[in-house]
Amino acid sequence: MANHGKKSWYIVDGWLPSQAELQNSFYEGHEAVMILNCHPVDAEVIMDIYYEDKEPIEGIRIHVPAKRVKCLRMDHPEEIGGIALQKHEQYSLKITSSVEVIVQYGRMDVTQSNLAYIGMMGYSE
Amino acid sequence: MANHGKKSWYIVDGWLPSQAELQNSFYEGHEAVMILNCHPVDAEVIMDIYYEDKEPIEGIRIHVPAKRVKCLRMDHPEEIGGIALQKHEQYSLKITSSVEVIVQYGRMDVTQSNLAYIGMMGYSE
Amino acid sequence: MANHGKKSWYIVDGWLPSQAELQNSFYEGHEAVMILNCHPVDAEVIMDIYYEDKEPIEGIRIHVPAKRVKCLRMDHPEEIGGIALQKHEQYSLKITSSVEVIVQYGRMDVTQSNLAYIGMMGYSE
Amino acid sequence: MANHGKKSWYIVDGWLPSQAELQNSFYEGHEAVMILNCHPVDAEVIMDIYYEDKEPIEGIRIHVPAKRVKCLRMDHPEEIGGIALQKHEQYSLKITSSVEVIVQYGRMDVTQSNLAYIGMMGYSE
Repeated sequence: MANHGKKSWYIVDGWLPSQAELQNSFYEGHEAVMILNCHPVDAEVIMDIYYEDKEPIEGIRIHVPAKRVKCLRMDHPEEIGGIALQKHEQYSLKITSSVEVIVQYGRMDVTQSNLAYIGMMGYSE
Repeated sequence: MANHGKKSWYIVDGWLPSQAELQNSFYEGHEAVMILNCHPVDAEVIMDIYYEDKEPIEGIRIHVPAKRVKCLRMDHPEEIGGIALQKHEQYSLKITSSVEVIVQYGRMDVTQSNLAYIGMMGYSE
Repeated sequence: MANHGKKSWYIVDGWLPSQAELQNSFYEGHEAVMILNCHPVDAEVIMDIYYEDKEPIEGIRIHVPAKRVKCLRMDHPEEIGGIALQKHEQYSLKITSSVEVIVQYGRMDVTQSNLAYIGMMGYSE
Repeated sequence: MANHGKKSWYIVDGWLPSQAELQNSFYEGHEAVMILNCHPVDAEVIMDIYYEDKEPIEGIRIHVPAKRVKCLRMDHPEEIGGIALQKHEQYSLKITSSVEVIVQYGRMDVTQSNLAYIGMMGYSE
């Protein structure tokens, strides 16, 4: 039987690149966390943010509708409970959901004149 | 005992980059999903596509022959049941197979004058 | 108890990029498969190569010494049983070991004037 | 129940790129290993380094405080027990922790005039 994912996910290497659009660049530097909910019920998700040298911020609430994928821009505070992450600051994410989901992370870095990507599944349990 | 994979796979961060070939570029921007079937029997695969703000498209049928790898170009509708994905539209994939397979995802982005890659295994269960 | 890996591994998206060194490039385009053996005994590894439209090549023998990492260049036939992979040809790998190992894949593409990477763990079971 | 990770992790394809900053580059080439400890107790971590052709270096001690992420620069000997890794030398990592953690790896390569990334979760058991 397929569960359509897990209820606990982790991303370790969060780090917001510079955002400024470059000449000739279609893209804007950013990080995103994508959450896929294949269930016929909504997922109530809690996100915790861990840092290198200060207490975590816990309990950010995210709503992922039934049978939808939600894309969170980590540089858009209004999408992550009003938290404004600093550029070039290391952080990690713990994501807990009321129903099983699948979580993928992406970074698009356009600091230089051509983009570089990181893309990977989170760690789940 | 090796099962040669799993029957359920997920890719969360589908997003077709621009396709136009650039000057001096050997490459064409695309996404691909590769399905490896190590069994001596064919795999009958069902692909579902999830979106951010509309109902999923379910039940796309894919045939992966015995002891072969199949490479699906996500920008070629004829390879994915006639579905034409829009460029720059977020989507996710749920892949279910009659026998165990292994699924990998790749994105090649040549929007800028040099390519960037994402490559990773899907999430399986 | 840590097993130091698994005995079965898979890489799906094998594809040799062009190899020619570019002006000002320190690098040579290639793919590599790295096998880590943390055990105090040697690992006898069998590699099978799957294709899109022809029979797999099975039974390539690889030796990974005790407590060493082995780096296989996929464009060096002498490192993979004399098999000469074609550039730009899709292939997949099945890797089976006498003792548990960990297998990572890397692609370095320098077709354009700046490199792009893919790097990821294989799928294991 | 979420365990917040695993106690054993592996990274296979360690390889330090050149570090020199290029003209117009904000970045410095490096590899990093990030360890997330979500527990309310500190994690005592042991790192072993494996090579292609010499004995492993075992028993490097790393301290990861409770509810923090630790970012290790692999080109900074003072952060990894005084070990100076050579550039362009293949190595692998085995990481063992007193409590469950999550380990991610990153490489930033700026050898050419634009950066390339590798980013992925380690293998865990």
